[in-house]
Amino acid sequence: MRVVLCAPSHPGNIGACARAMRAMGLSRLVLVSPRRFPHAEAAARAAGARTLLESAEVVDTLEDALAGATLAIGFTARPREFAGAVRSARDAAAEAVRHCARGEAALVFGGEMSGLSNVELARCQLVATIPGVPGESSLNLAAAVQVVVYEAFVAAHGGAVWTAPAFAPATMEEIEALYAHTERTLIAMRFLNPRQPRRLLPRLRRLFARTRLEKAEVDILRGILARIDQLLERAKRTR
Amino acid sequence: MRVVLCAPSHPGNIGACARAMRAMGLSRLVLVSPRRFPHAEAAARAAGARTLLESAEVVDTLEDALAGATLAIGFTARPREFAGAVRSARDAAAEAVRHCARGEAALVFGGEMSGLSNVELARCQLVATIPGVPGESSLNLAAAVQVVVYEAFVAAHGGAVWTAPAFAPATMEEIEALYAHTERTLIAMRFLNPRQPRRLLPRLRRLFARTRLEKAEVDILRGILARIDQLLERAKRTR
Repeated sequence: MRVVLCAPSHPGNIGACARAMRAMGLSRLVLVSPRRFPHAEAAARAAGARTLLESAEVVDTLEDALAGATLAIGFTARPREFAGAVRSARDAAAEAVRHCARGEAALVFGGEMSGLSNVELARCQLVATIPGVPGESSLNLAAAVQVVVYEAFVAAHGGAVWTAPAFAPATMEEIEALYAHTERTLIAMRFLNPRQPRRLLPRLRRLFARTRLEKAEVDILRGILARIDQLLERAKRTR
Repeated sequence: MRVVLCAPSHPGNIGACARAMRAMGLSRLVLVSPRRFPHAEAAARAAGARTLLESAEVVDTLEDALAGATLAIGFTARPREFAGAVRSARDAAAEAVRHCARGEAALVFGGEMSGLSNVELARCQLVATIPGVPGESSLNLAAAVQVVVYEAFVAAHGGAVWTAPAFAPATMEEIEALYAHTERTLIAMRFLNPRQPRRLLPRLRRLFARTRLEKAEVDILRGILARIDQLLERAKRTR
C-alpha cells in the first residue's frame, strides 16, 4: 500500500506523514511535485521515520504516482457533486487492505490549500472522506493521513493493543473470606450494627465486585483489616 | 468531553490539537503547565480553531485539569506494568462517549518527550493506547489526539459521511435495452459473430453490472451506439 501526496506545500506535513506511516507499518510514500522537498522541517517532523522519508519517491504527476497501483482511493473533505458513492475512511481503509491481497492500493491526498482537484479525484476509483463536524471537518494533511493509515492498520491487524501483565485474580473463596473478615471488623469497630445492618455490606460487595479483585489486593485489604483488629485488641487491653 | 494535555512542549502541537478537536466537535482544551503558551506557532497550526485555542484553560497540575470530570482516560504508547486492562483507542472513545450521558470524561495525553508519567496515569481510571506497529507506534502528540477525537466523533455520530447527490439509477428495462442495442451494434460492426459469440456479451454484462448504471450513463452509452449505427449506415450507403 502506498500513500500519495499531491503537491504538498508544507515540508513539515511530509515529515509528519512519514512518521504516521511508520507507526502504522506502511513504508511507501510518493510525492507529486512537492513545493519544498527535501527539507529540514520534513526531517525534523519525521522523527524516527527519516529512512522512510529519504526513500520517498518524487514524481511530476499523479499519473506517475499511481503507476503500478490497481486501486486508487482519493480522500477529500469537500463534498463533490460528481463523486458518486463516498466511503468513510474506515470503509475505504478496509477496502484498501482487502485489495492488497490482489494488487497495490494507493491512498491519495491533496495539497493543504484545496485538497484534490476534480481532475485528480477523477483518477481515483473510490472517493473517501473522514467523518467530522460538517463544514468544520477539514483536517490538517498529516492529521488526515494519520487517521487513514491508523484505520488501515486496524483493518489489517485488528484493534488489539499491548496488555499489561495479568495479575492473578482472587478466587471466590478468597473474596468471601475478605467479606466475612470485613464484616467482623466493621462490627468490632462498631461501624456496623449487626442488628441494623442496613445496606452496608451489599454496597461494599457491589463496589468490590466491580473492581474484579486480584489476589494481591485481597491480601492488602485483609492486612489492613488485621491491623485494625490488632489496634482494637490493644485499645481493649489498655482500657 | 475535555482534552487534557500534560506539559506539552511544542506550541505547534497545542494548535494542531485545537484544530483536531474543532473538526471533531470538541471544544474544551485544558493545558497542564505548557512550556510555551500562548504562542504564534500554536495559533498558526490551530488554523480555524483559534477561538477554541484562545479559550484553552491553563492549569498547574493534572489534578486541577481533572476537576469536575468523572472519568479520566489516560493515553499512552508505552506498555506499563501496572496498567491493568488496557483499552484500544476505539473502545476507550466509545466508553468516553457513553460516559458523557452521566458526567464529563477527560481524554488525557502526556508530553511529547515521554508521555504520561506513572503518577499521572495513576490519576486515570482507564488506560488506553492507539494500535500500531509494536515498538514503532509512538505517534506525534497532535496525531494521537487526532486519532482519539476522531474515534470519539465516530462513536458519537457514526461513520456517516457526506454523500454526493444521488443520480437516478437505470431501471432493469433500460439496462436490458442497452444490452440489446449493444449486441445489435457489435454484430453490425462485425465485432461479434452471432454464430460464435464466445463470452463477449456475458463479460460486458458482468462489467456493467458492477458499475450500477445510472439513467444518464445508459443514455450516454446508447448515444455512442446510435452514433456508431449512423456511421455504419453511412458507410454502407457510400460503398
